[in-house]
Amino acid sequence: MAQRRLRMGMIGGGPGAFIGPVHRLAAEMDREIELVAGAFSSDPARASAAGEAYRIDPARAYPSLDAMFAAERARADGIDFISIVSPNHHHLPAARAALAAGVAVMSDKPLTGTLAEAHELAGLVRDAALPFGVSYTYSGYPLVREARARVLAGALGAVRKVVVEYPQGWLAGEAVGKQAEWRVDPARAGLGGCIGDIGVHAFHLAEFISGLAVTELFADLGSVVPGRVLDDDCSILLRFENGARGVLLASQIEVGELNGLRIRIYGERGGLVWRQETPNTLVQHSLDGRSEIINAGGMLIGADAAARTRTPPGHPEGYLEAFANLYRDFAALLRGEPAPLLPGIDAGVRGMTFIATAVAASRDHTGWVKL
Amino acid sequence: MAQRRLRMGMIGGGPGAFIGPVHRLAAEMDREIELVAGAFSSDPARASAAGEAYRIDPARAYPSLDAMFAAERARADGIDFISIVSPNHHHLPAARAALAAGVAVMSDKPLTGTLAEAHELAGLVRDAALPFGVSYTYSGYPLVREARARVLAGALGAVRKVVVEYPQGWLAGEAVGKQAEWRVDPARAGLGGCIGDIGVHAFHLAEFISGLAVTELFADLGSVVPGRVLDDDCSILLRFENGARGVLLASQIEVGELNGLRIRIYGERGGLVWRQETPNTLVQHSLDGRSEIINAGGMLIGADAAARTRTPPGHPEGYLEAFANLYRDFAALLRGEPAPLLPGIDAGVRGMTFIATAVAASRDHTGWVKL
Amino acid sequence: MAQRRLRMGMIGGGPGAFIGPVHRLAAEMDREIELVAGAFSSDPARASAAGEAYRIDPARAYPSLDAMFAAERARADGIDFISIVSPNHHHLPAARAALAAGVAVMSDKPLTGTLAEAHELAGLVRDAALPFGVSYTYSGYPLVREARARVLAGALGAVRKVVVEYPQGWLAGEAVGKQAEWRVDPARAGLGGCIGDIGVHAFHLAEFISGLAVTELFADLGSVVPGRVLDDDCSILLRFENGARGVLLASQIEVGELNGLRIRIYGERGGLVWRQETPNTLVQHSLDGRSEIINAGGMLIGADAAARTRTPPGHPEGYLEAFANLYRDFAALLRGEPAPLLPGIDAGVRGMTFIATAVAASRDHTGWVKL
Amino acid sequence: MAQRRLRMGMIGGGPGAFIGPVHRLAAEMDREIELVAGAFSSDPARASAAGEAYRIDPARAYPSLDAMFAAERARADGIDFISIVSPNHHHLPAARAALAAGVAVMSDKPLTGTLAEAHELAGLVRDAALPFGVSYTYSGYPLVREARARVLAGALGAVRKVVVEYPQGWLAGEAVGKQAEWRVDPARAGLGGCIGDIGVHAFHLAEFISGLAVTELFADLGSVVPGRVLDDDCSILLRFENGARGVLLASQIEVGELNGLRIRIYGERGGLVWRQETPNTLVQHSLDGRSEIINAGGMLIGADAAARTRTPPGHPEGYLEAFANLYRDFAALLRGEPAPLLPGIDAGVRGMTFIATAVAASRDHTGWVKL
Repeated sequence: MAQRRLRMGMIGGGPGAFIGPVHRLAAEMDREIELVAGAFSSDPARASAAGEAYRIDPARAYPSLDAMFAAERARADGIDFISIVSPNHHHLPAARAALAAGVAVMSDKPLTGTLAEAHELAGLVRDAALPFGVSYTYSGYPLVREARARVLAGALGAVRKVVVEYPQGWLAGEAVGKQAEWRVDPARAGLGGCIGDIGVHAFHLAEFISGLAVTELFADLGSVVPGRVLDDDCSILLRFENGARGVLLASQIEVGELNGLRIRIYGERGGLVWRQETPNTLVQHSLDGRSEIINAGGMLIGADAAARTRTPPGHPEGYLEAFANLYRDFAALLRGEPAPLLPGIDAGVRGMTFIATAVAASRDHTGWVKL
Repeated sequence: MAQRRLRMGMIGGGPGAFIGPVHRLAAEMDREIELVAGAFSSDPARASAAGEAYRIDPARAYPSLDAMFAAERARADGIDFISIVSPNHHHLPAARAALAAGVAVMSDKPLTGTLAEAHELAGLVRDAALPFGVSYTYSGYPLVREARARVLAGALGAVRKVVVEYPQGWLAGEAVGKQAEWRVDPARAGLGGCIGDIGVHAFHLAEFISGLAVTELFADLGSVVPGRVLDDDCSILLRFENGARGVLLASQIEVGELNGLRIRIYGERGGLVWRQETPNTLVQHSLDGRSEIINAGGMLIGADAAARTRTPPGHPEGYLEAFANLYRDFAALLRGEPAPLLPGIDAGVRGMTFIATAVAASRDHTGWVKL
Repeated sequence: MAQRRLRMGMIGGGPGAFIGPVHRLAAEMDREIELVAGAFSSDPARASAAGEAYRIDPARAYPSLDAMFAAERARADGIDFISIVSPNHHHLPAARAALAAGVAVMSDKPLTGTLAEAHELAGLVRDAALPFGVSYTYSGYPLVREARARVLAGALGAVRKVVVEYPQGWLAGEAVGKQAEWRVDPARAGLGGCIGDIGVHAFHLAEFISGLAVTELFADLGSVVPGRVLDDDCSILLRFENGARGVLLASQIEVGELNGLRIRIYGERGGLVWRQETPNTLVQHSLDGRSEIINAGGMLIGADAAARTRTPPGHPEGYLEAFANLYRDFAALLRGEPAPLLPGIDAGVRGMTFIATAVAASRDHTGWVKL
Repeated sequence: MAQRRLRMGMIGGGPGAFIGPVHRLAAEMDREIELVAGAFSSDPARASAAGEAYRIDPARAYPSLDAMFAAERARADGIDFISIVSPNHHHLPAARAALAAGVAVMSDKPLTGTLAEAHELAGLVRDAALPFGVSYTYSGYPLVREARARVLAGALGAVRKVVVEYPQGWLAGEAVGKQAEWRVDPARAGLGGCIGDIGVHAFHLAEFISGLAVTELFADLGSVVPGRVLDDDCSILLRFENGARGVLLASQIEVGELNGLRIRIYGERGGLVWRQETPNTLVQHSLDGRSEIINAGGMLIGADAAARTRTPPGHPEGYLEAFANLYRDFAALLRGEPAPLLPGIDAGVRGMTFIATAVAASRDHTGWVKL
């Protein structure tokens, strides 16, 4: 497996999908991985149409998980791993089938529909001892990794405060269209709405960059749009293991906000500010009044982040490249190399724990709760 | 009083003061007001030095409140009002003396050191029936007024969400210097640290622009810097009278943040975003995907906001001009004209109620409380 | 004169004026100067109305220059200087009368209507040996002074390139209104349109910050709006005395541009970037990949620039404060103190030479010309 | 060819190359194209190493053009086209060989090393009647296409002014490293330095968005860094066919500038502003004071630009995606579909004409010249 392109099968990602094509593109960007098969849809016609759109061998566009694993196992050039890009309630069954077939898994987030499913999956992953990744996309950005490296190297001193926000506005009106509909439906999205779709990204980012675990939270989740069952607006206060204070805001009803994930982290001696929509600059503040603009791919970047840009500074890279960085890590794992920054099953369970804890705490008005 | 310049006496604002010279400059900017007297310091030498620095008649640089009111009452050209710019615990005594002398009052915020003082002052103002203003500076910005006008005119539909933040970093280290020292001392600052110094500005702004009262809050106040007694980092969740959700963040320990007050307000059909550090643009988002940049002084500005800029668009106006707008309003009040947007005693008491409620709720862990 | 407020008379600035009230406000901002008299208009009724609007003694709102100088000379508290804020063709007569009366002069830019007038005025100033200032406003910004200080201290190494732009859009349509009309009329504006109104500001800024004289230029001036006689769009290439290359762009027809003066200056080892519309930050780049954000009023500011801000960093100051900094310099001059950064008669003549040279070179297609 | 992936061979792009890997990535992004072969280097060992790095069949990493065309012609699955990514002086020989072999060509810019070569190549392309593309990358950005569509639809009225700038700073010091060295060497770069490397991009963008041909120019090219033979700093004034005025600035010595291509275009009724480093927003100004932010992928985008984003608004796309859009166009051409926005041989010749004209005019001081 060392040098050849790794072979990926996709679960979900049929016609009209958003995240499936993104996974395909990201996985293949560095030519380490190739999409060769898929169970894109349980509807055979749609499965077949997707196979054609992805330009794969029609014979490998399967109508079901079982068909895929059976047929791929029989091939000399069968898939090395699957990417799970279907709605949340499908994550566990797909991962279970893959692991049973001895196939590694890269899963979209959140890990599963419920926390119980997450724990079940963690057991399966542990038993299977196969590579497992979760696509907390934003942790793939070079400057997010640079921020983490700087914080862990002590550039800010002890961390005191983290503010992470993820504002969106696309669900401020009625949820119309395939992407919107399943996200507001508890049967498909699971127990979280906004918190599961984007809040969990913000949560992962806060722990990822700070290098600190959240130990307590106070959650105030709301369903703002009339008739909405799941949360669409979340305000969550945090405490980190070292006593640092935090705030996590996520919303889908802030009209005009696109995908405004941003994080600010402050320590005794400095601060770091990063925004996903302008991801190629990071600002570092110091207690002595100095504020620096750090450019992705620039001269001031550490080795790990530098290795995660593909062009010189000033050539903007974005969401797809960040996503591709996770797949590059995952490919390394598959080849037996270390990929310590790739979110794995623990980060997946952690996200589900966060979602479940916050949803319950908000619903039951239990105030501050342990995480 | 109709046409002549109004005569101002200043309480506080002696050598080394920050906000005193700002009040002086703002009050005089439009030539409607003139600083003519002051009780700048209880130390006669410092009072005298301040009078010289302000270039007023040395005879009118008084060593005490009593001396000032006695002497000024005896003059044909005595003061029309005082500006109170001393630390918080001095606000009530100064205002009480002025009102007793029949002199109107413009006071720095927060209104007083404690809520009880605020209520006492409210009674005095009611009885005296004299003009009274409170310098919630940021409500004087033209685009803040434009934002309020747009919200009240229904541009966003019903308000659903308000996020107001006021990050600073200047107290992240030890509190050094005159300005820092009194702000972290309960004896002089009163019951709030960060919340009283800047949180109350954010609170006023949220109610001012939304036109909605906050009815409940959950407060999480912290004293982050070792040894600090008062709060220096505040996270407060809000509910407004119409059910809208809100978040108010204020901090003095976010290294590198200068005076980063900013507010976002979202309704059913749109959103507005404004930042104090770049105060001459306002962004309005609409549900149909339109995002507009609105320039201070530009063609799209309503009458009230237009009347509060002094130069054409593109000529940046800032903090001092916003402050001067409050004094222009106050001058109108003194001349018997309406000034409905000038924060008065009610807004002052409201701010103190907010501070007292949040401080108590956070200290006593009482969860969500009524405001 | 050492400690009292200096007394200013204004020439021009009657009803409907833009720059007159700006001069008044700027002059008085620091309480070093007071407007006490004016020849605001040659129409006595308008002169009188202006006096009332400025709230000065009605007796000192004169109907003519002669009346003003005669009356003021007779007073013990007569004016110390005049500010000339009338259209360009009035500058010379007003200055001549003042200097003849032994009164110092602060003049709006450009210095005069023609270069010949400028030379005549220079002779008068030399002979009178009285303080004379020219309001190249933008040189009053604290961060412009900081930029100059850094360049002169060698922070960039030898300067290699200057790009200064001054885009506006307000004259893209027909010139309507008092402010527009005189600026497009050669009889009142003089020989330059856009170049005289704003190009000369850009030119001064380039020489001011770089500390280098322009020695050659290539001018391409156009009259874009149909029927316009004077230039409304200017592209000028520059050479500086040390061989550095430069570009100066100014326009009044770039729709949507407000007052977008900006300058970038590059040397062997670094670069500096400043924009007037967000004047409180300056970015400095270094050859080693470092880019710093420098905040007005912040810890990294040198003494001179620090002395030209009035509030802590994060409290935006703007156009009026920059303008006031020139008056603070001028007040220092009047009191016999040095004010080396205040543009004086030489800078005024220099600007007129630039205008005349560029207009002629463009009209006559003479290519590169000496300056 | 209709549905299968198109097969690409690469010329150049060996170890240490910048633009080769970019072409590979961009070409494959949408799964319409696959890199299958290459003549990556004339050094067999390096050619072979490159083949391994790209993970292609080792047998198809050829040591020469001739070897490649001979072998590929013999295969049923031979290449459909080549990408030329070698230094400029190699462009013509490579394209000549491909066209002679009946293979389509996608070439990096500038088209060739000299104008004579460009004309020769144009003849070859005409005779071969094969698809030919030139990678003026920035024309692939969705918002560049949106800008063009809006201008051509008359959103600005008649175009009056275009300002296009392309500042870089990476060659402000000595030219060190493979990428720098060939660009400053006339033998490999051809007749232009900065103008050929980046100026030609700016030129193409100006004509592309405006829909207007430049008919005259005045060029001022300089070699600023001591010892540099080719230009590294370019200031060029333009006239367009309709009389519109223009400015084109490009530089490689502006320290701290990364890849700051930006363009502003103004007409009678509006203006458009776009910056490559923040490519996902476009600002449109209107004469009525309205300024709108247009988001890539957002609701206000026309069909063509919408079809050139791959993610929802707020998910930043950048340089690689823009590049991939050119390859998507080129794939369409190969499949026999129209791709009117893909720069072809005419745009390539046009760029070389621009370079040659500007270089000669600047060198010979001929003033304004026809283009």
